[in-house]
Order: sequence, then C-alpha cells, then structure tokens
Amino acid sequence: MELKTLGEFGLIASIQKRFEKPHSQNVVCGIGDDCAVLKVGFGHAQLLTTDTLVENIHFQQALITPYQLGAKALVANLSDIAAMGGKPEVVLLSLSLTSDIDTDWLDGFLDGFQKTATDYQVSLIGGDMCHTDKNIVISITVTGSMPLKHVRYRSMAKVGDAICVTSTLGDAAAGLRKLRNPIPNPSFDIKTLIKAHQEPRAYVEEGRWLSKQKAVRAMMDVSDGLASDLKHLTQQSQVGANVRLDKIPLSKALKATMPFNQWSAESLALTGGEDYCLLFTVDAKHVDRLNKAYGKQFQQPFYVVGTMTDTKEIQYFLDDHPIDLDVQGYNHFV
Amino acid sequence: MELKTLGEFGLIASIQKRFEKPHSQNVVCGIGDDCAVLKVGFGHAQLLTTDTLVENIHFQQALITPYQLGAKALVANLSDIAAMGGKPEVVLLSLSLTSDIDTDWLDGFLDGFQKTATDYQVSLIGGDMCHTDKNIVISITVTGSMPLKHVRYRSMAKVGDAICVTSTLGDAAAGLRKLRNPIPNPSFDIKTLIKAHQEPRAYVEEGRWLSKQKAVRAMMDVSDGLASDLKHLTQQSQVGANVRLDKIPLSKALKATMPFNQWSAESLALTGGEDYCLLFTVDAKHVDRLNKAYGKQFQQPFYVVGTMTDTKEIQYFLDDHPIDLDVQGYNHFV
Repeated sequence: MELKTLGEFGLIASIQKRFEKPHSQNVVCGIGDDCAVLKVGFGHAQLLTTDTLVENIHFQQALITPYQLGAKALVANLSDIAAMGGKPEVVLLSLSLTSDIDTDWLDGFLDGFQKTATDYQVSLIGGDMCHTDKNIVISITVTGSMPLKHVRYRSMAKVGDAICVTSTLGDAAAGLRKLRNPIPNPSFDIKTLIKAHQEPRAYVEEGRWLSKQKAVRAMMDVSDGLASDLKHLTQQSQVGANVRLDKIPLSKALKATMPFNQWSAESLALTGGEDYCLLFTVDAKHVDRLNKAYGKQFQQPFYVVGTMTDTKEIQYFLDDHPIDLDVQGYNHFV
Repeated sequence: MELKTLGEFGLIASIQKRFEKPHSQNVVCGIGDDCAVLKVGFGHAQLLTTDTLVENIHFQQALITPYQLGAKALVANLSDIAAMGGKPEVVLLSLSLTSDIDTDWLDGFLDGFQKTATDYQVSLIGGDMCHTDKNIVISITVTGSMPLKHVRYRSMAKVGDAICVTSTLGDAAAGLRKLRNPIPNPSFDIKTLIKAHQEPRAYVEEGRWLSKQKAVRAMMDVSDGLASDLKHLTQQSQVGANVRLDKIPLSKALKATMPFNQWSAESLALTGGEDYCLLFTVDAKHVDRLNKAYGKQFQQPFYVVGTMTDTKEIQYFLDDHPIDLDVQGYNHFV
C-alpha cells in the first residue's frame, strides 16, 4: 500500500498502536501528544520531543537565512515543550549537510541556534553531524521539566470549555506566500508577515503560566494550522467544537494585505500552519477572570474562538450562521 | 571555508566550544562522549544520545532489508548507551521517507525496530514522520538510566591501563565489502561476515556489568573503527596507547576469507567501523581477575589489545616491533 493512502496521521496512529504498551513504568504519555512524558523522581515530569526539518519540504535555503533557520528549527521544538506547559532544559542537534554548505553557512546557523538557546535557557548537550548528497536535514530533540500534576495534554478538554489561542493566526503562512511571490518594495505589513514566517517565537512562558492555572484543561501548539490541530484536540478529548470564524484573531498586517490577494485571511488562519502559538481550552466559567490575569501577566490578552461541544465534530460559524468548510492542515505523504 | 577543511571532528569540537557552559545545573556531561549525562534526582543519571542514518551515506537499500535496517538503526543508538554503562529506557524515532517507500517497507522496518526494542526493553514514546524527495533519513534519540557514580566516560583512562574490547573486530566492515562485491554461492564464513554488518548487536548487558566494576576506567563503543575511536579515548584521557596488532581479535570467518582478498584483516579491524562492541580500559593489576569474572558472566572473555601510555600518541606493535601505520577511521565531510 502507498504511504499516501494512510497519510502522516494514519501512519502515526498505526505506529502508536504497535508501541502502546511501554516496557518502562516511568512512561506517563507515549506517542500522540506534543511531547512524550516520563515520570522522573517524585511528582516530577520530564518532557521529550523531536522534530525533523528537511530541505525543500520544510524550508528552502533561498527563503530563509542560516541564522533564521537555526533559530526557527529550535523554536519549533521549544513550542512542543510550551504546549505541555514545560520549561525547556536540554537539546540534541543532528545535522546532515550537503556539500554546498560551508563554514560561513554553519556559523550563521549555529549563531541563530545559540541565540535562541540562550534566550530560552536551554543547553545543547549532544548531537550528530554527517554529510548527505541532497537536502539538508535538521533533527532536534528537546527535553523539558515541570511538575507532573501540571502537565497539560490534548485529551483534557471538556464539553463547554472555551477554545483559546495566544496569538493572531495565519501571519506565518501569509509571509511564506509573500516570499514565494515576491514584489518590489514590499510594505511594512508584508515585511511583518515575512518576519512571522522566518522568525517565529515559542510561547514558553505563557505555556508554563497557563499550565499552573486550574481552569486550563487541554493544551497543544498550533503548528499545522488551527483546523488540523483542533481536530487532534477534539479527537483525543472525544468532544467536538464550534468555531466562530469572526472571532479568529487576525493581525493588522494580514488584514491590510487582504485586498491585494487571492487568498482569504481566515483560510490562512485555519490551514496555514507554523503559527507556533498555543491552543488551549478553559473552563468557561473562569475564562474572563483568567484572561484578565493573563493580560496582566503578558501585556496582551488571549483570544477565545469557540466552544467545545458534545458532537465529536468541528462546526464553523460566521456571526452565528453555520458554514460548511472543507479545511485541511498540512499532512505529509498526502 | 569548506566543511572538509575542519572535518566531522573539527566541526564537533568547534560546536562543543560554543556550548561548553550549560544553562542547566543538571548537565554533568555535554558534547564529546558517547552520551550526554544529566543528573536526575539523587545520585541518578540520565543518558541521552542521538544518531542519524542517511541513505546512500550510512546504508543502501539494496544491501540491507527494511527489517535489518530498523533493528540496526536502533542498535547503533543502544550501543552508545552501553558505552557509558547504562540501561536503555525510551526512544524517539524520526523518519523522513521517500516516495518509493510503501507500507510493506515501513512494516518491515518497524518489525525490526520493534523486535529490537523488545529485546532490549526500550519503549518507543515519540517521534516524527515526514516525506522527502531524496534519501531516507532515520534519526533516533535514546535515553538510558544508571547510578551517576557508575557512569564511564572516555576521559577516565590512566597510564598503565589495559586496553580491552568485547568482541572480534572488522567483521562488519568485511561483510560490507562482500555485499558490495558479491560472489555466487558465498561460503558460510562470508555469510557470517555479512550478518555481522547487517545484524549487529549492542553490548548493553556487558556495559552495565563493566560499569559496576571498580577496575574498569574509561569506556566507549567502537563505531568508527578501533584506530579512530581509541584516538578519541586517548585524547580525552590525555594519555597515549601502545596497541599490539597481533593481539587484535579476529574472527575465524574473517581469517578464513583473508587468502582470497586484497585487504588485510588487521586493517579492517582498525578502520572498518560498525563493530558496536565496547572499548574500555582496566587497571592492569586487576585485568586477569576481571576477565575471569567477565568470562563466567558472559561465556566469553574480553580481549586485551594494548596498554595506555604517557606519550599522548598511539603506537602500533607487531610482536614487540614498532610499526608505522597511517590509519584513519570514518570521518564525515573529509
């Protein structure tokens, strides 16, 4: 059978089934969430996550500088630690490099990687280097630590929860499209979108803060687009969701570029991916109180985009009118 | 500057220098050994290692079955845990697959991976899957656990120590050459060598046992060839070594194939790589006693191939006569 028949998520599900019974008693959570979770010592959790970036699939050298790539590759992994509420601790870096790469490129990459590692206080402690005859491959593993009782899983959402995100969506996806179809003298807004694609940040402090709040239930990061990621969250929590398209946060820059483009801002926000913000659900009774405290902490509120339901499906609405949308995030092999 | 000017080990050394000051107090050992070591809880160590295999660099699909590849990719990482004396615990698996791969290939790969994971009692708890347009890439991270005081580093050798290995050397390298130049009706010996290349094992139980013995000092695994790996060990221990070529253990199969081949068994043993046995040093006063106990435990003694010296160089001998050898193990980019 061809891989595309199963697709990325079908393949992951079949691997998950094979390995569902761990040999170690310390495994609290295996395949299927943003991180695996190990019990370490008394009441303490270690998070583990790994992410591989392949040239010409995840990035193109012409569209990102080595410095930006080094920073972004690490941020993508830190975002998975943030998604569970953890504090990043150590990182392993595997690099497979092609023969066109020289030490200037590598220094740029490592400068970006190191700056990000310092910003997030994570230590590079090992890795692997080899050459390859085509396509740079960057494979990164990050560990995190946190109290076991605070770990937030995708499966924790309950019917009635408010669905929340920590930032505007779709900017990175719009930036990538702008990079692929460049225009002379791009506006400030376009530069802002491009920067969102090339220089994302991870919501580590926000994730740690949210994980300590009792009202916060499920949490994950938005890496494949809200539509795809929310689907994982609803499936693992065995609930459904109503999403208000008119409530999806869009940046000024994204809205400003809309009149000139053929794509809709909402479609990018739902399917674009690489936002690396947090998607989480909150006990609806406490969402306003929580958002005030969050806004005080981070000088910026989070955004409520919908409600968890008992339907096991995701239904989109525009100003209370149901909308039929066929939206898909990125799915490898398909 | 081109990467080949620095070479794999020069690049690793420059990265090591950049990241020598970890942010976390829990980092006991960073870049430069077979595993990184984290302090976890009281008196306990977590080992972390990662290894990437790239198609057409580390393996060719024509020369290894998917089942063997899945098993071997994991064994290469388990060997790094064994090298410090640890017990493997969990594994993360990243796969970048080309479009010629189907679910039969993947099932074969996962069967081999799973059998090995079960044999060594290690749990797959996460990973990543994506597609790539050329060259399969397999990136694996394994953790291990052990008492902190038993961890064996490359830097622990002392002048006068006996240099020991746990198995015959060069078989895997001879097997690879046989695979590349196949002959009709290969002998039993040739099949044995080919199996050594395709189906290596990791010396996990041996490493755990050795790490508990006070007389054992430095330890690492032989993955790039004895000459290259012993060089790392002498450099990190700031000592030299005398190696007796006539004491290097060669299998019956390797010796039997010698009359028919243009390469010398000793050269393969020194530079071939992928042996995945253990290289360790032992307080010379205790080496005979230790080897008796080891032989009783594992039904097979280890082999003493030389002595650590205060010269900071590796000198080879044949029956007490010094020999000038210019031997190099595998070095990416060079």
